[in-house]
Order: sequence, then C-alpha cells, then structure tokens
Amino acid sequence: MLDTPDLSELIEDAARRLAGRAVQTPLLSSSLLNQRVGGEVFLKAENLQHIGAFKFRGAYVALSRLSPEERSNGVVAWSSGNHAQGVAAAARLFGISATIVMPHDAPMSKRQRTEALGARVVAYDRYSENREDIAAALIGETGGAAIPPYDHIDVISGQGTVGLEISRQLETLKTSPDQIVVPCGGGGRTAGIATAIRHRHPSARIIIAEPQGFEDTCRSLTLGERQTVQDGARSMCDALQAPTPGAITFDINRQLLSGGVAVPDADVADAMRFAFEHLKLVLEPGGAIALAAILNGSISAKGMTTAVVLTGGNVDPDLFSDVLKGVV
Amino acid sequence: MLDTPDLSELIEDAARRLAGRAVQTPLLSSSLLNQRVGGEVFLKAENLQHIGAFKFRGAYVALSRLSPEERSNGVVAWSSGNHAQGVAAAARLFGISATIVMPHDAPMSKRQRTEALGARVVAYDRYSENREDIAAALIGETGGAAIPPYDHIDVISGQGTVGLEISRQLETLKTSPDQIVVPCGGGGRTAGIATAIRHRHPSARIIIAEPQGFEDTCRSLTLGERQTVQDGARSMCDALQAPTPGAITFDINRQLLSGGVAVPDADVADAMRFAFEHLKLVLEPGGAIALAAILNGSISAKGMTTAVVLTGGNVDPDLFSDVLKGVV
Repeated sequence: MLDTPDLSELIEDAARRLAGRAVQTPLLSSSLLNQRVGGEVFLKAENLQHIGAFKFRGAYVALSRLSPEERSNGVVAWSSGNHAQGVAAAARLFGISATIVMPHDAPMSKRQRTEALGARVVAYDRYSENREDIAAALIGETGGAAIPPYDHIDVISGQGTVGLEISRQLETLKTSPDQIVVPCGGGGRTAGIATAIRHRHPSARIIIAEPQGFEDTCRSLTLGERQTVQDGARSMCDALQAPTPGAITFDINRQLLSGGVAVPDADVADAMRFAFEHLKLVLEPGGAIALAAILNGSISAKGMTTAVVLTGGNVDPDLFSDVLKGVV
Repeated sequence: MLDTPDLSELIEDAARRLAGRAVQTPLLSSSLLNQRVGGEVFLKAENLQHIGAFKFRGAYVALSRLSPEERSNGVVAWSSGNHAQGVAAAARLFGISATIVMPHDAPMSKRQRTEALGARVVAYDRYSENREDIAAALIGETGGAAIPPYDHIDVISGQGTVGLEISRQLETLKTSPDQIVVPCGGGGRTAGIATAIRHRHPSARIIIAEPQGFEDTCRSLTLGERQTVQDGARSMCDALQAPTPGAITFDINRQLLSGGVAVPDADVADAMRFAFEHLKLVLEPGGAIALAAILNGSISAKGMTTAVVLTGGNVDPDLFSDVLKGVV
C-alpha cells in the first residue's frame, strides 16, 4: 500500500491545487448542540462546497493531475450523484467533456445538475447492472480517462483536504480534535480525511458512520477483510450505497480507523430536521449521517472536542419536505 | 441626530463586545448566482448566527451597555420573533429574566424557541393591539429595562457589526463593495449596516429591500418624512412588518440610503427555493428578500461587486415545505 506519509504529502499538494478553486467551507458550532451532547462539536459544512458536496475536491484534483494528453478525450465517471456533479464541474473548468454513469433512481436534482454542468449522463439499474462494466465500455468508446468515485489515490487525496482544513481551522480556534466522525461510502473521503487527521493529530480517534444495511466498512473492519452489503439492502442515504469498500481505501482505513457505527434512516431524518431547525443548513441524508451518530448517542461526544463532517446537501425538495413533515 | 462618525465608533465598540460571543458568519458566494446576475455577489449568512438571525447582535450589545443596576430587574422587549430570541439568548448569558411581547401569529418555532431560551412570552394581536403599550405596562409591573427592536442606538450599533464584518471579510478577499442590499423592517439593521459601510466605503450604494405592502421606508425616503403602511397589508415576511420607520433609524437612513425596492412574496419564495437548491441554506422569508431583489432583477448586480445580507433562517417547517412544493 501507499505509505500514509506519502498520501499526507499528496493531500498537501491537493490543497495547493484547490486553493482559490474550492470553497474553504466554514467550521460551524452550535451552543444548543454542544449543550445537548455535553461536549464541543465542530461541523465542517461541505454542503456549502461547490456543487453542494465535498466531491468537487477529489474530482478537481484527479483531473488536475492528468496530463493534457490524458485529458484530451474527456473523462468517464460512475457515481450516485455527487461525484457526478464534481466531475462535471471540474471537467467544465478544464474545458473537456464528461460522461457519467448514474443509477436511474439517483435523486432527480443530482442528475439534472450534472447535465446542467454540461455532462452526458448514462443511466443504469443500481440493483441489476454493474456500473464499472458500463463505464469500461464507455471508456473504450470515447477514449476518455476514468475518474473513479473513491478507489483512486488522486480522488482520495482531494477528499483528504477536508481533514487538513478542519485541522487548520481548529488550530486557529486554538483547539484540536479528540475525535472526528466521517460519513463512509466507498471509503475515499474516509481514507483521505483519516490520513490528514492522523498525520496532524496522532491520538485523535477516527470514526465512521454508515447507513444501516450498508455497514460494509464496519463489518470489514471487524472481520479484517472486505465485506459486501447484502442483496436487497435499502437506505435513504443515496450517496453512501457503495456495496463494498474500495481495495485502496480499505487498505488505508483498516490501519487508521478507530471504529464505526451503523445509523438507521429514522435517526438520519432526525439529524436533517435538527440541521434545518437549529443550524439553518440543508443536508442530504448521507450528509447528515455523522451528525445523526452524535445526536442519537451511538458516538459519545461527552467532554470531548469532536469534528463532524457534513458532506453534502443535494436533496430533492419532495424528500426534504417529507422529512420536515416527519413522514420519513 | 447622532453623528454617523460617533455611531461608527459605537459599532466598533459593539464588535469588540461581540468578539467571541457572536458567530463571525461566513461571507459566501455562488458561481451559479454570479453567472446568473453577471456580477460578483457575496452573501452574508446571518442565518448561521446564534438564534438563527442577526438580532442576537443588537440584543447582546444593548444588554451589555446597561449597568448591573439597570439590568437587575430583567428586560422587556417587543418583537415578531427574531429580536425576541436575541433578547432571550442575551438575557440568559447575563443571568437575568426577559419578558417578550410577541404577536400571536408569529411563527410557532420563533415563539417556542424564545420560551426554550427561558423568556416569558406575552402574546398580542398584531392588527388590533399596540405592542408598545403592552410593553410599557410590563415595564411598570416588572421594573425591567426596555430593549426596543430597532429604534435604539445600542441595538442599531450591534446590528451595524454585520456591515463592519462584511467590509473586513471583503478586504481579506482583496475587494470592496460597489453596493450592499439589506432587508429593511424598522430600519435598525439598515441604519447600523449603512453607517458601517458608508464609513469604510464612502462611494458604495446602500439599497434596501422591503416586502410589497410594507415599503414604508421606501415611501418615506421618497416623501422625505416617515410614512406608515396601509391597514390590511399582508406579507409572508413576518420579520419585516414594522408599520413605520423608527425615528432614530429614519434620521440616519434618509442620509445614507441610495434607494430601495419593494419585493412581492412570490419572488421571496423563489429566493428561498434558490437558497435551498443552490446555496444549501435555510432562509426565512424576510431573510431571503435582499437575495430576491437581486434574483428578480429589480436591483441590478451586473458588472458590480454586491454584498447581500441574508438576515435569518427561522421559518416553520410547514411554510418551508409549502415553499419547496411551490404552493407559496
């Protein structure tokens, strides 16, 4: 595996590439939240990132590290929605084409915004087709470069800049994290953020939150090898439904993570309502899951300084209304 | 009237009092918004302030400038909701009681949160009773100090710190405002922000946005003296329904404002949807009205650097759902 010190340097390089390109999102706090959990919680609001999610970071860094020749035939990606928009936005900045394989049941707003950013979207069935196979065919057809959603060192290092920024922002507040909670899908953001945090805060605990039914990384950590989610698993967290940890990401995460929790949809909805009412932030289900794990007590924040990553806010208005009404 | 240079100094003093107490809210931007209006727009996200609105600033500063004796019997305020929460939160920090006169049709969440902050709420009918009279009786009864919602120099100087922060944040971005758009109710935030901006940017245009039907300050500016809204006026912007400009605030605003626009509710709802979809921010109607004036084109941002104040995000979930569904 890649040494984590090397990856730390790649993350520093990624931060330089993103300077002036990505939003340095605010690190927010809420006295009500602190009171409720009995500790100091800092919320990294990546829903305020370009395209409404942290995924712009990894996509932009991955494209920036391609040579002009490698970029010349455009890029091909597969994504449930946020990586799709990230790649589309980055491709537009580089003036190249993007083709994205997306599940047909991805949130409508994610698909529409990907297309609005100029990308071509190819839909597939999340439960019966293999998106990597479809992407491979498109790469053959277009000659484009593959930009995987998580299992790719350039993508991981881009997402890792979230961790670096949190560390630097806490430093200006004259504090440092005892623990950090990260939503986990395929493990790319987790691996990047874990590397950045471990490098700067060797004793900080790094904990993941996964949707109940999609706790493949939690189970893989316990069993010591990569596990796959069970057929028929469903969750409202559309952004966190990678069926198995990435090979590269798991190799990093197994060394750096302190553990993880599985969060039921009902608690995710509670966290979305909390963010609406008390933080005035729009969070998508996957973007609220780390906050949910703090609010439902499955991760204790008592007496500690906890950083929580709010990863995105791309949620369809109908679902958001249903969450506000308590239907979900 | 108070000289605006004196008020500028009071605003600097207020900023020192609020340091470490108020949130230094982020100044956000959106490439989509910039593209749409053809200029550079910076959004001051005061919905991310304590209590979900800028009103914490003025309330805290006003309480901090009372002597311990003046504070000893608590405070009495009248407010449609955000000043209520601001006073309640500040009173709790000072360990004193707060009694708040609120309209019975104020958003339920604003009333509940005011009570949750430990304040006593006295309800009245916005259309048939006079809240100042009710407050005067409560002051007689409790011996508390009055904390008016806008027509008070300490409150004005507290709200003015929003303008000071915008100016300093733009400075770190190596730019300065050509114009600033401020939601206007009784004129307190407008007077404070206008003073801070005019002091630091003498040629910047300062423009207000008022709800259609409640454009009393716009009409007062045109006619040169304070006008009152017509009986029966209605707007979804519950935070901006002061029936007439304040005496102190209008005296300041008539000298500093470049003009104003009246915004229909439908455009306010559009701006709330824009903030949901593209900014991932929860805005209440009054908090979205300056953005609405930019989006509907009644204030041109073309080729300019425009600062827009997003004043608050305290909106009931039912109304927010209706806005998302396009019912409002």
